[in-house]
Amino acid sequence: MNPKQIIQEIVAEKEVDQVVFVGCGASKADLYPAKYFLEQEAKELRAAHFTANEFNYATPVSVDEHTVVISASLGGTTPETVAANRHAQKSGATVVSLTRSVDSPLAKTADYVIYHGFAENYAAKLEKTGYALQLAVELLHQIEGYAHYDSMQEGFEKIYELAQRSAEAAGKSAKKFAERFKDESGIYVMSSGASHEVAYSTSACLMMEMQWLHSGTFHSGEFFHGPFEIVDRDVPFILLMNDGRTRDIDARALAFLERFDAKTEVVDSLDYGLSSHIPAEVLDYFNPFVLTAVFRVYAEELASARQHPLTKRRYMWKLSY
Amino acid sequence: MNPKQIIQEIVAEKEVDQVVFVGCGASKADLYPAKYFLEQEAKELRAAHFTANEFNYATPVSVDEHTVVISASLGGTTPETVAANRHAQKSGATVVSLTRSVDSPLAKTADYVIYHGFAENYAAKLEKTGYALQLAVELLHQIEGYAHYDSMQEGFEKIYELAQRSAEAAGKSAKKFAERFKDESGIYVMSSGASHEVAYSTSACLMMEMQWLHSGTFHSGEFFHGPFEIVDRDVPFILLMNDGRTRDIDARALAFLERFDAKTEVVDSLDYGLSSHIPAEVLDYFNPFVLTAVFRVYAEELASARQHPLTKRRYMWKLSY
Repeated sequence: MNPKQIIQEIVAEKEVDQVVFVGCGASKADLYPAKYFLEQEAKELRAAHFTANEFNYATPVSVDEHTVVISASLGGTTPETVAANRHAQKSGATVVSLTRSVDSPLAKTADYVIYHGFAENYAAKLEKTGYALQLAVELLHQIEGYAHYDSMQEGFEKIYELAQRSAEAAGKSAKKFAERFKDESGIYVMSSGASHEVAYSTSACLMMEMQWLHSGTFHSGEFFHGPFEIVDRDVPFILLMNDGRTRDIDARALAFLERFDAKTEVVDSLDYGLSSHIPAEVLDYFNPFVLTAVFRVYAEELASARQHPLTKRRYMWKLSY
Repeated sequence: MNPKQIIQEIVAEKEVDQVVFVGCGASKADLYPAKYFLEQEAKELRAAHFTANEFNYATPVSVDEHTVVISASLGGTTPETVAANRHAQKSGATVVSLTRSVDSPLAKTADYVIYHGFAENYAAKLEKTGYALQLAVELLHQIEGYAHYDSMQEGFEKIYELAQRSAEAAGKSAKKFAERFKDESGIYVMSSGASHEVAYSTSACLMMEMQWLHSGTFHSGEFFHGPFEIVDRDVPFILLMNDGRTRDIDARALAFLERFDAKTEVVDSLDYGLSSHIPAEVLDYFNPFVLTAVFRVYAEELASARQHPLTKRRYMWKLSY
């Protein structure tokens, strides 16, 4: 079933008043745009977003048969997220899971499963984010009505091709970035709006996990309320710039970084033509797709320049912990 | 008026269905326990938490006359937060502000103001967090009813003295910490549960802003899903350990840090007797008080050992930006 059919079936059966997004690491971050969308656009529906064990150990009292839990795990085996599915079902919630792994533990503990791509190309890596956002849009539209539903559909029709094309066009800039940053030992990552947790997963997963580089991340609106005191000539920053309502927040951070000669790399949705393809009224929600696709190329080039493959781990997949 | 009276007056006038917490930096983080409490305990009330400019530039459509906005700014002049007050009022929301600064711009743009202490002692620095949490408890209890209301009151009666005593008892450990970490150039900070953003403000404000130290922060449940690949012998970590439901999450991260000889400093609510003073059913919500008070002493000792006063800035209060 597709997201629309799944939500139709759920709302035909029960009154939904809450959507809880649960995952770990990049799979948690990939759910953020959907949570952000509901927080922005829902008049009544509640939305929450947890790392799986926080949800497991401190489950909100509101999680009951009126809750839809949307969980994600790429390989479908993340123990905390599988436990969250079981826990959610025991609380009476309906569970929709996103994974690429057929018949995985995550798939087996969900009421509904959507299988997404990943390895095929840059666009496929965005399907998890995309399905979560589609589920959120369907929930909102079918429960409360959503004025820009058609614009969102237009966005979904166009975003994968645009993101793929953007990634393919990013090679030259990505190579330059890799050369400039390959000898750094650490790097900060910022963004805002729907892309806040693209910055988070870029920092926690691409930099720390996959490159063993030191990293920190924060909302670009928070930059001026603490983190900016670390800025000095050549301190490395990646700014993932949004096109849309929060652009001014990102631009203000950029102006400061440039003023004090921080070593700044900007990946900007505007450069990839987001607003020429996506209707203005839903523009914000599609930034994460372009930024994720383009920065993946940057990470690949960095890995290559540092001779540290993105798949290399010292603990993950190697030890029990 | 005290928090109870303020909420009585608000709910007598209007039906409240949403509470939005807005601030910047440490004042944003200080509101997190209140948001966490509502997300945990409310069956119907919605809760959200934003850095002020995210709220200003991308205001949720749900912000209307049924919304209470709770904002905070220590000095009452943070431009983004003052703008958020104006913006919230224009949307019809009722604004309750926390500040220590009488007749400040923040106070003048709020419907209700609670003035809190700060400089008097360690306990006074917790009043902002405490009033926000009291407001959240009153909102929940007066609107939906809350079974553990009396336990929370017992907690409020005891927590300030316990936190003050804890800070006063922390000197020796804090000095040892400062000696051990004074030559580090960066340090990670983790926590979970209601203390998640104590870790955030420790990282973004105490380390980056006030010590110009590199830092990153994440939920200790996220540690195993990316960040832990950075762990190696002597990589510096601060773990703010909670007593209560999410303790196992923190303890699992600690076991890993110790297994690989990371340079780990643990500040643990359990060591300061939190559970002997606070009723078990509300224990989680009082961790941030003890951890904040104790770590303040650690930060002071670190500042002293590094000869870098906590008040020293290069940009904040010095430039326009």
